[in-house]
Amino acid sequence: MKQSVISGIRLASMCEGAVPYGLVEEAGIAIENGEIVWSGMLSAIPDTFADWERTDFGGRLATPALVDCHTHLVFGGNRAKEFEMRLEGASYEEVARAGGGIVSTVSATRGMNEDALVEDALKRLDALLAEGVATVEVKSGYGLTIDDELKMLRAARRLASLRPVRIKTSYLAAHAVPVEYRGREDAYIDEVVLPGMDAAHAEGLVDAVDGFCEGIAFSPAQIARVFDSAHELGLPVKLHAEQLSDLGGAKMAASYGALSADHLEYLDEEGVAAMAASGTVAVLLPGAFYTLRETQHPPLAELRKHGVRIAIATDCNPGSSPLASLLLTVNMACALFRMTPEEALAGATREGARALGLADEIGTIEAGKRAEIAIWDVEHPAELAYRIGFNPLHRLIAGDFA
Amino acid sequence: MKQSVISGIRLASMCEGAVPYGLVEEAGIAIENGEIVWSGMLSAIPDTFADWERTDFGGRLATPALVDCHTHLVFGGNRAKEFEMRLEGASYEEVARAGGGIVSTVSATRGMNEDALVEDALKRLDALLAEGVATVEVKSGYGLTIDDELKMLRAARRLASLRPVRIKTSYLAAHAVPVEYRGREDAYIDEVVLPGMDAAHAEGLVDAVDGFCEGIAFSPAQIARVFDSAHELGLPVKLHAEQLSDLGGAKMAASYGALSADHLEYLDEEGVAAMAASGTVAVLLPGAFYTLRETQHPPLAELRKHGVRIAIATDCNPGSSPLASLLLTVNMACALFRMTPEEALAGATREGARALGLADEIGTIEAGKRAEIAIWDVEHPAELAYRIGFNPLHRLIAGDFA
Ligand SMILES: [Zn+2]
Ligand SMILES: [Zn+2]
Repeated sequence: MKQSVISGIRLASMCEGAVPYGLVEEAGIAIENGEIVWSGMLSAIPDTFADWERTDFGGRLATPALVDCHTHLVFGGNRAKEFEMRLEGASYEEVARAGGGIVSTVSATRGMNEDALVEDALKRLDALLAEGVATVEVKSGYGLTIDDELKMLRAARRLASLRPVRIKTSYLAAHAVPVEYRGREDAYIDEVVLPGMDAAHAEGLVDAVDGFCEGIAFSPAQIARVFDSAHELGLPVKLHAEQLSDLGGAKMAASYGALSADHLEYLDEEGVAAMAASGTVAVLLPGAFYTLRETQHPPLAELRKHGVRIAIATDCNPGSSPLASLLLTVNMACALFRMTPEEALAGATREGARALGLADEIGTIEAGKRAEIAIWDVEHPAELAYRIGFNPLHRLIAGDFA
Repeated sequence: MKQSVISGIRLASMCEGAVPYGLVEEAGIAIENGEIVWSGMLSAIPDTFADWERTDFGGRLATPALVDCHTHLVFGGNRAKEFEMRLEGASYEEVARAGGGIVSTVSATRGMNEDALVEDALKRLDALLAEGVATVEVKSGYGLTIDDELKMLRAARRLASLRPVRIKTSYLAAHAVPVEYRGREDAYIDEVVLPGMDAAHAEGLVDAVDGFCEGIAFSPAQIARVFDSAHELGLPVKLHAEQLSDLGGAKMAASYGALSADHLEYLDEEGVAAMAASGTVAVLLPGAFYTLRETQHPPLAELRKHGVRIAIATDCNPGSSPLASLLLTVNMACALFRMTPEEALAGATREGARALGLADEIGTIEAGKRAEIAIWDVEHPAELAYRIGFNPLHRLIAGDFA
């Protein structure tokens, strides 16, 4: 029995209630075998925990460890050339002719074995962990063959054995139509997406099933076929929806009880209401908004009005969001989307956990949750949103994922 | 005599010429007593250097160490509360009534002694150095009394004795009118700015003299009086100009042969031409543009057309740019201002050096320059601009500032 008490902290528990951030001054947290068994004002600590070994953090701020609930962390290559070409004035067509775009990432990913994919992803993962992240969602979606999708998911699973992190995988074969199936989306779904899902699930590689619902990818009806199969396997679903246009994807996803619908810049109020009714989390991705120089903001006022839960994530990927900092994402959520610091920090903890179906396990600091705690060298949690490109992490307590 | 050769690198010398980034494949750099004595293709290394001890970097990219040529790194307190209030809907007036704005930073800075200012600034400085920065400009300007301005400059100088970094100081008492002089700008200049400059110069604390020329600060005529005194002391000048409106500050600064004019969102073509004629560097500050949600872009096309040199910098400060990452600044220069990766990287090396009057000493990798070299775990220099919130620094070679 490992028993200890964290003391000398200002606690931002991120529990919901009247107190912003769930702030508790001069707080303590009692931990037993990696689980939080008590938290509150240290002066009121119950006798049971009072004589456990204490670690004092000198008045620093404690928050839940961060959760990055939407990433494409595993991929091959990079798209710096394409980034440069476009800034030098090349058109999308010229970039495509030079082999750019998602096609280049698919090609690079197919060309790498699992070990190489893991090695490359570790660099980005380590950047996230250094900022207090303890849970990362990782999607497939750059393989687009059964073998290559499974290879990506195996690489994602491996990450959890190499670092103290919880990895949740999403099967995203319905990310793009590969060149060899161009114009034959339904055949791609039948011949790759659905049998690949069965195979990946049989191997225990899938925690959720995701899709990209957009004019340049798959229609709601096509995604619905993917979600039907996911439900037959008992897998939860989530969806990239309403990023560039409004196809009603989020509403469709809500009808499947989706864990989350992500991006959502073009979401209308009907979609917001559907998400509220189904408890589907809105995952906002300011890194893609920033990189693509979008001007259409996600409907924050409507999401608030309908009480939709809002998470934020890096969307770390080589094309539309080569972003490997969740703290910067918190800042961008405020600076670009005008979320409050409290909303943004909840989005990177409590609501990020909810978007992964982990609301009962992590995301807040309270009895019954896992002891995954970030200790910061700041006085107030708003500082985590206010600074740009600065990492005040003092210590990440995590890794006991028993 | 310390003699060595860096080998196994792809070199982005950032020297001007026909080759983008001054790229040399399979390159080497010969170093003697902290000075570069040769660089080029390793296969062509002269006999003199051929048997010097070699350090092989396994094919990594070498660039000049980065230069952050515009910061307010030394200050007291932070403005996270104000950041939060505004996102929660408070007006500027409400923020001011709650003690926010620059007044709060002046008050916190006055209330701290030199040691405390140094300790606080070191956190930000360490964040910069971890990304390959070896030269940092630091301004005064939050003291606004003679004693407090000198205290800030002494703190800035101390940084260079505590870390392997070159610090260039700018005397910026003409940053804001302190509350006690409100409405008496000229008296503030006569009683504080000018005698403070004499005192700071006498103590060897001033490398350049700066000012903030704006409707909310000082007029061009008032700044001209400050610059006249600077020139009497033989000190170079630079100016915050045309950030929020066009007062003709940059043109005035150019008439004093200013090293740089900084911000420049509202600069007109007459000002651009004046800067070109005087060789004044345009220092663009995307962090402030981002934080203040500006929509007016600096006149990049005109600056290019007239051949004005363009540097970029963090503008690290507690209000309009709480940004402590020069790599993120490089990305922002591309993403927000549409500079090319090569322009942005030159802006954070060669042109940053020029903005500090150090063009002969640092900023490129070539014989005669100081051996201040960043080794990156990337293949191509465009990757340094493309990624967001990711630090691929492998090693910073610097610190021999003899
Ligand atoms: Zn995505
Ligand atoms: Zn400034």
